[in-house]
Amino acid sequence: MPGPRFPLAIPSDSDFPLSNIPFGIFTTDENTTPRTGTAVGTLILDLALVEKHGLLGGLAGSTSFFSHATLNAFAAQPAAVRTAVRARIIELLQDGSSALFADAALNAVAFVQQSRAVMHLPMTIGDFSDFMCAEVHVTNCSKMDNAPGAPPNFFAMPTAYNGRASSVIVSGTPVRRPRGMLRMTGSPPSFAFVPTARIDYELEMGIFISQPVPFGTTISSADAAREHIFGLVMLNDWTARDVQFTEKTPLGPFNGKGSGTTISPWVVTLDALAGAEVAGTDAHALANMATRPPYLRHDAPAHTWNIRVTAALQRDAWPGGPVDVSASNLSALYWTPAQMVAYHASSGCGLRTGDLLGTGTISSPEPAEGAGPGVYSLGCLHELSKAGTQAFKLANGEEIIFVEDGDEVLLRGQVVRADGSTIGFGECRGRIEPVI
Amino acid sequence: MPGPRFPLAIPSDSDFPLSNIPFGIFTTDENTTPRTGTAVGTLILDLALVEKHGLLGGLAGSTSFFSHATLNAFAAQPAAVRTAVRARIIELLQDGSSALFADAALNAVAFVQQSRAVMHLPMTIGDFSDFMCAEVHVTNCSKMDNAPGAPPNFFAMPTAYNGRASSVIVSGTPVRRPRGMLRMTGSPPSFAFVPTARIDYELEMGIFISQPVPFGTTISSADAAREHIFGLVMLNDWTARDVQFTEKTPLGPFNGKGSGTTISPWVVTLDALAGAEVAGTDAHALANMATRPPYLRHDAPAHTWNIRVTAALQRDAWPGGPVDVSASNLSALYWTPAQMVAYHASSGCGLRTGDLLGTGTISSPEPAEGAGPGVYSLGCLHELSKAGTQAFKLANGEEIIFVEDGDEVLLRGQVVRADGSTIGFGECRGRIEPVI
Repeated sequence: MPGPRFPLAIPSDSDFPLSNIPFGIFTTDENTTPRTGTAVGTLILDLALVEKHGLLGGLAGSTSFFSHATLNAFAAQPAAVRTAVRARIIELLQDGSSALFADAALNAVAFVQQSRAVMHLPMTIGDFSDFMCAEVHVTNCSKMDNAPGAPPNFFAMPTAYNGRASSVIVSGTPVRRPRGMLRMTGSPPSFAFVPTARIDYELEMGIFISQPVPFGTTISSADAAREHIFGLVMLNDWTARDVQFTEKTPLGPFNGKGSGTTISPWVVTLDALAGAEVAGTDAHALANMATRPPYLRHDAPAHTWNIRVTAALQRDAWPGGPVDVSASNLSALYWTPAQMVAYHASSGCGLRTGDLLGTGTISSPEPAEGAGPGVYSLGCLHELSKAGTQAFKLANGEEIIFVEDGDEVLLRGQVVRADGSTIGFGECRGRIEPVI
Repeated sequence: MPGPRFPLAIPSDSDFPLSNIPFGIFTTDENTTPRTGTAVGTLILDLALVEKHGLLGGLAGSTSFFSHATLNAFAAQPAAVRTAVRARIIELLQDGSSALFADAALNAVAFVQQSRAVMHLPMTIGDFSDFMCAEVHVTNCSKMDNAPGAPPNFFAMPTAYNGRASSVIVSGTPVRRPRGMLRMTGSPPSFAFVPTARIDYELEMGIFISQPVPFGTTISSADAAREHIFGLVMLNDWTARDVQFTEKTPLGPFNGKGSGTTISPWVVTLDALAGAEVAGTDAHALANMATRPPYLRHDAPAHTWNIRVTAALQRDAWPGGPVDVSASNLSALYWTPAQMVAYHASSGCGLRTGDLLGTGTISSPEPAEGAGPGVYSLGCLHELSKAGTQAFKLANGEEIIFVEDGDEVLLRGQVVRADGSTIGFGECRGRIEPVI
């Protein structure tokens, strides 16, 4: 069976035009060895094959970037090498005389339909940590917790908690509703091990580390942006709110965040975000830049990216597919991805290739551009339902509070460049299964 | 050069008699390939060689337990296999006609002086989490934080925070004093990125996971004790108290715990703890056992171990070696190691072979048996110095508050069996280097 002809037919609204070239790990029924591919339109280009056929023009030297079960070997390369490899892949795809199209035998096997592939976790994740960088989110959550507003430290540095790498799962993996130790009403305090009643999603992005920061050393935000961020994914930090709030004093989130963290399978590189750089939209952050310690300063005026992010909910009983609930923008965060990385490293803890940092819930003061009625700027149900006290209405007229058994949550992200072109992250999906 | 003759001369106060047989990873100048050894007296027996010579009697089958750079392959075996391998090693060491002594060529290379070996991290650690299980510690810390006492959830389940695997280091690795974002005095709140002034140790033990608990599944405390705990190490959860308290609301410990977590290199197995089982000493825990949810109940009356733990401080200016500061006992904890493992897994987060759980600071109401004046039952300087407000006197007459540059902290643990015999954990050492 022949492969696709040149030029590749890529739908104009595809997440994966030639200007994206994200990296992911896939298998097929025919070849169950996990390997690296890139998404192009509705296809996956098998990069392990591309490399094996010597089409990377010696960029890999004698090492292999793409025949591994994770992206770590490639992500660990210097930025210049990763940039050159991506450019070479684009060249091959844009050239009808390249072996991808001219070599019929290769052409027949190099491309796989995304619908026929199984995607896997893209990286071996050493550590996962999750930040809290949206002023709106922190202010809302603090007030619901009887605090006057965001704590003062929020404005001094990007705050975070450590999560677990064992529970980071790839899009499509079901999440089981957990039991947790919940505080019962009444006095004296009593607790019971019962199913959580408050499963929430958190609309976030994930940041994958490329070159490591050795234990005991530190970096600046400028270093982080240039050499230490491999790329971004969509990230849903599932949270059992009732478990979280039972546990939270004094050690912060633990089992309430342990039942699963879903990420999208395609890592979109910083190179692909070129042209979408924007200044953070938060006036405080910009005004305060000069007052930051040097390691938290940016050396470029545009230091985050214009990425529209959405969370949609699919309930079995609803006709018509997922319904958008949250719509926000990465650039609404008070702290930037590079500042998160630099603050994290400032303890000397070391960051390893494949470490994953979540941005925290991306809530914003205003709904994202183009969001209609019933779509909100807040990135989790805890905020939208006022801590579960109030159902709220979606665009389809339905009212919801938290995620129910059988519900599927779908996160998406769209990068909007200054020239109007867009690329996307693909899907970050997860369905809640009943407690056992 | 001939190896040691049978029977091995083991000092009577050795941490490593034949009834211990801990597992660790070592290298030597002559052989820089990391491999598994066991400590016997002042020697290391090279278990990779023992295995290679077929002395394990087929227990390993065609797989190798001991030729890897970590213990994960061995730790992942069922408990019955690990027990049999340990018993076989003891047999070989107790038998003068075994190849270890009778084969002169093997005898000459199978044993290495511990003083000539470099020890490495024993496991590939997937995730590190740290509990808070001493009622005395939690009560003291809560009161210093203006709370009336331990929070109610402390008595309902073992609470914890997730740490980082990247900053777990083996005994002897220096720890750099970090800078952190600290809150300055005055109003409005201001912060500065300055060296921490409050480096503290935490006297803890670490629990290594053997067989994994798959993502989405749970276990009971009884399961945990039987199949999922590989063994214990000493663990010092270094903490920059000022950073910790600047960060703590609302997400708990993060960079304040990121500068290093030191563990001892030898994993002491549950088999080696046999004979040291005791009931937890905390009256609440025992009285409450029947009220626990089934997964947190123990099926044996003696469900923790009699392990004396000490922290000593060596300051360069002091003559005479490390001075004991803290002396407590693992059995003083309100929650047991198996309960910590079962609670952790109850979220469905999954536990992987090599995951590490810390017990939290082991403080107790009374000093450990045999502790003299100037040695305290509290396992960290934050408690001993009343949150850094009060210097306190050591047995050598010196007064201290926190750990200073150049100070070395030494943790030790001694298992005391009902028959009076003892084994130990070796050293867990770390020295604080000045900020850069």
